[in-house]
Amino acid sequence: MTDTGDKKINILLFSGEYDKALVALILANTAHSIGVKATIFCAFWGLLLLRDPDKFTLEGKNELEKAFALMTAKGAEELPLSRMNLSGLGKMMLKKMMADEEAPDLHNFLQEACKKGVKFYGCKLSAEVMGIQKEELIPGVEIITAEDYLKDALDSDLELFI
Amino acid sequence: MTDTGDKKINILLFSGEYDKALVALILANTAHSIGVKATIFCAFWGLLLLRDPDKFTLEGKNELEKAFALMTAKGAEELPLSRMNLSGLGKMMLKKMMADEEAPDLHNFLQEACKKGVKFYGCKLSAEVMGIQKEELIPGVEIITAEDYLKDALDSDLELFI
Amino acid sequence: MTDTGDKKINILLFSGEYDKALVALILANTAHSIGVKATIFCAFWGLLLLRDPDKFTLEGKNELEKAFALMTAKGAEELPLSRMNLSGLGKMMLKKMMADEEAPDLHNFLQEACKKGVKFYGCKLSAEVMGIQKEELIPGVEIITAEDYLKDALDSDLELFI
Repeated sequence: MTDTGDKKINILLFSGEYDKALVALILANTAHSIGVKATIFCAFWGLLLLRDPDKFTLEGKNELEKAFALMTAKGAEELPLSRMNLSGLGKMMLKKMMADEEAPDLHNFLQEACKKGVKFYGCKLSAEVMGIQKEELIPGVEIITAEDYLKDALDSDLELFI
Repeated sequence: MTDTGDKKINILLFSGEYDKALVALILANTAHSIGVKATIFCAFWGLLLLRDPDKFTLEGKNELEKAFALMTAKGAEELPLSRMNLSGLGKMMLKKMMADEEAPDLHNFLQEACKKGVKFYGCKLSAEVMGIQKEELIPGVEIITAEDYLKDALDSDLELFI
Repeated sequence: MTDTGDKKINILLFSGEYDKALVALILANTAHSIGVKATIFCAFWGLLLLRDPDKFTLEGKNELEKAFALMTAKGAEELPLSRMNLSGLGKMMLKKMMADEEAPDLHNFLQEACKKGVKFYGCKLSAEVMGIQKEELIPGVEIITAEDYLKDALDSDLELFI
């Protein structure tokens, strides 16, 4: 069996979809439970996962950023499915099927990840383009550049683009 | 040139789409042909690739699982394209274009992969949530956990999330 | 901090979408700026990024290939968004938001990548199936097989499937 001590996984979460974010969080949480450090770098749509619904604000945004803020998911639970979303019906089905198996939902996985020490980074350029401020994100998120991401990823043992 | 001896590639197939599954299988088959071992871990929609159309059953499923089983692809050839599916027209075009170049179709690639010894795993949590039983899958698939996947991936030389 | 000397990143660009191609190019350009070599292997829809709009031709294509050539993006700037494309409106918004932050557009990133020495490869099988000839692509692209890609990726320090 592999020795997992001192290993690190690095996930670049580009997608802003419920099922893909779920996989990213399950992998990161599982990694931590076997002693492997995990980092999730959220870029582009992936940044939506980190929005804190309670901190939603339109202040300090220009017109386009306001429109964008309103049109996109305000946090984990609002993300749509990548397939079969069916205006939310498919997602409702999936969430019910997960609950039937006593699997936690995305919000719970996110909270667990934060508690376990999974490190969340937000992409600086994405945040600037989307007009999202650090204050609108869940606590503990650091904003870093693509260069910082690359250095961290090159130093990891498993890197995935989700 | 790289020495490929003893190397391993590990693909996490999340997508249930014809073109993406095609790429996963082409990479795995090509790896085997140059002496590189290949593993495909099918999670979420990726699990649909492994369904055996001849073993389709609604038995032992609850109402939601039945609906889900009916709404999703019953094996490789029923998977839609990730883009330009156009209710199947785009996929028909692609398949015809592939046949014109004498490229095998997805079903053939899957059979070749099984024959060559590409190792297919199904994700335990995904199978449980979707209500898919091992008996509904093509022969030889093993059901493993996210932890098993992570250990295998950490032990590989090339890991992709498709 | 990581020593990035002699390191290589390898991106398999499968997607033919504006935002995903943007991420691939930003990562490749950033890599080069810190002394890390970058390779982008464009397969399937990813090949559309490499089409040179000025070299578009229907010559030498059969009927299906002609239809396909007309239905798909003729180069970087025609690629749609992976989400919220809204028949082009979402993409217009994104491009405006990027311009507001003085971020270059996809075409600029592609030119910068070529100038910096990012290596672009096209997938042989994809080019054959889609009926795309090397002459229709931007200068400097080499057509290679999946086997060539695998050997290059196995020899890299960071591999992503985008």
